[in-house]
Amino acid sequence: MPLKWIHHSIASIDKVAQKNAEKRQAILTKPAGSLGMLENLAIQFSAWQGVEKPELKQIHISVFAADHGVADEGVSAFPQVVTGEMVKNFIAGGAAISVLAKHNQAKLEIIDVGVKNLPKIDNIILARAANATQNIAQMNAMNKEQLQRALQAGKEAAERASASDAQLFIGGEMGIANTTSATAIACELLDISDPATLTGAGTGLDKAGIQHKSDVISSILRRYKEELSKQNNLTTQQKNDPLNLLLIMGGFEIAALVAAFIRCAQQGIPVLVDGFITTVAALVAISINKEVKQWMLFSHCSAESGHKKILSALEVNALIALELRLGEASGAAIVIPLIKQALALHNKMATFAEAEVSDS
Amino acid sequence: MPLKWIHHSIASIDKVAQKNAEKRQAILTKPAGSLGMLENLAIQFSAWQGVEKPELKQIHISVFAADHGVADEGVSAFPQVVTGEMVKNFIAGGAAISVLAKHNQAKLEIIDVGVKNLPKIDNIILARAANATQNIAQMNAMNKEQLQRALQAGKEAAERASASDAQLFIGGEMGIANTTSATAIACELLDISDPATLTGAGTGLDKAGIQHKSDVISSILRRYKEELSKQNNLTTQQKNDPLNLLLIMGGFEIAALVAAFIRCAQQGIPVLVDGFITTVAALVAISINKEVKQWMLFSHCSAESGHKKILSALEVNALIALELRLGEASGAAIVIPLIKQALALHNKMATFAEAEVSDS
Repeated sequence: MPLKWIHHSIASIDKVAQKNAEKRQAILTKPAGSLGMLENLAIQFSAWQGVEKPELKQIHISVFAADHGVADEGVSAFPQVVTGEMVKNFIAGGAAISVLAKHNQAKLEIIDVGVKNLPKIDNIILARAANATQNIAQMNAMNKEQLQRALQAGKEAAERASASDAQLFIGGEMGIANTTSATAIACELLDISDPATLTGAGTGLDKAGIQHKSDVISSILRRYKEELSKQNNLTTQQKNDPLNLLLIMGGFEIAALVAAFIRCAQQGIPVLVDGFITTVAALVAISINKEVKQWMLFSHCSAESGHKKILSALEVNALIALELRLGEASGAAIVIPLIKQALALHNKMATFAEAEVSDS
Repeated sequence: MPLKWIHHSIASIDKVAQKNAEKRQAILTKPAGSLGMLENLAIQFSAWQGVEKPELKQIHISVFAADHGVADEGVSAFPQVVTGEMVKNFIAGGAAISVLAKHNQAKLEIIDVGVKNLPKIDNIILARAANATQNIAQMNAMNKEQLQRALQAGKEAAERASASDAQLFIGGEMGIANTTSATAIACELLDISDPATLTGAGTGLDKAGIQHKSDVISSILRRYKEELSKQNNLTTQQKNDPLNLLLIMGGFEIAALVAAFIRCAQQGIPVLVDGFITTVAALVAISINKEVKQWMLFSHCSAESGHKKILSALEVNALIALELRLGEASGAAIVIPLIKQALALHNKMATFAEAEVSDS
């Protein structure tokens, strides 16, 4: 696919600032290492911002919403119409992410990348790739033009974040049935043959529902392999391109997240990854360019059963695990104050010398 | 010991408000249960405050500081003088807890319950039981009058919290060598014969240091048993009184925390428990009155190796685990914004009916 920008190199990390931040952590009035992961957070932000004392004031949250044809297979506990209803709720301020964004003084934007039959509403960003994806148990999710539009929507969100000097980007998603799409993609990228290993309850399926969803994912993966064998015009490399995976099994919001994450890394904006779906988007982004991971921070390990396995495959540790499973960027938003506190400690604590405290 | 107040009954929990909060959580615009432990937090605060929409505005942090004679045994990576130096740092605003209290708009008070040779400083609360405990590897930590004074210091802190309408109490501690005292107490209460099971690095001991500390704790526990056998004037019940444990092996700050926790439960102020030392104080408080646990929330599981085992023995889950091991109430303070966000979500999210979103 001719998307040159997606393969551009990422922004570099400031190793000097990182070293200086490490030195500072070692002389603050506490036993070395006693602030655990909060010390690493501060050091990481120093490296990202290229300063000894980083700050976190501008936060940009983009929630991408789209519908999934595969909802027809009965893979979600909620009806498809909820995608659009929740989009309205995001904008009206009643959803979890609306409350959290306001609480944390973060900018929140909602992007329609393909919500089915959504009536016109104010304050939404329209970047529609289509009116929902196709049912991926039956056919390809999208065509190339639609994929391009979805990727463009993500790229533009990252560029808006950059334009507003965002020091942190959070991507979120809304799309009934999107754990089905995300799980299928993750199975393929992680070479997991039995989808049951990664299939979870999503918005709240019971045991039989999860079994059915896992069966649907099996058929999606079978269809994916058949589709690849039909792509006679493509080289093996093109077939294995993660973008081809998105085209066949993706969601528009997942494609948008992938593009947003890559564009953020190119622009030097750290990404705080949310839950299951966004971690799969991070996995796809890293499959396209493994360096992108340098600009990523993983907020939480969710209650969705496959999430822990994907984090582990990515060799990353999430900061918290509060049994969240909501999506919409909510888990990442909840972590914002932990970062702010890590930076406050790093910037404002006294050193041993300043406080005249004896070192060990 | 004639401490009648300590056995008074605790405040009751409002089960009606709890039920109403549970009902509210079920109708907010999210899959039921998808906010995980944040839902439980909000419900718990409803039960504590007796209202459907609880708030968290007044937070009272009391950090108790005291020295330990057992520091003479070389059980800490830092010299004893650091206790007093850090007390000055707390008050000057340069310590982790100073930064975190300010960041979270919490009231912070520092109580000297027995810091060795601390010169006069402003803005400290003086409630000195003695000028450090005795070396508990050689003799009893304190006498009865000293224990009474330490307990009184904790009781009064809880009463100051109540007087300022605190909606949350956080107790912290500072005292070089106090993980040694706390570990010995926990071994006895949990019937752990080999202290190595619970002994950790404290402020940063190496492997040999931890082994030495574990050996010192073994000798403390041997001495404790010898001391009990000498107490011919006491009944078995009096000997097994957790207060007797504090008298023989305690620290003044640990005794103060125990009293503060119990008094908070009696007054109906929820306690957010910090790290290893404070969890041991919680264990002692619960050993005195198991109902006290109803008013406790456990903030984090620290990097101190015994902490997880004690939390598990108490059958409680900590909210976060960020490899913290600093004490001074810092781990609990870091959790304040998670509680505030849980309450913001509970109070401000729209219901399915309000937002016209379809339920599952």
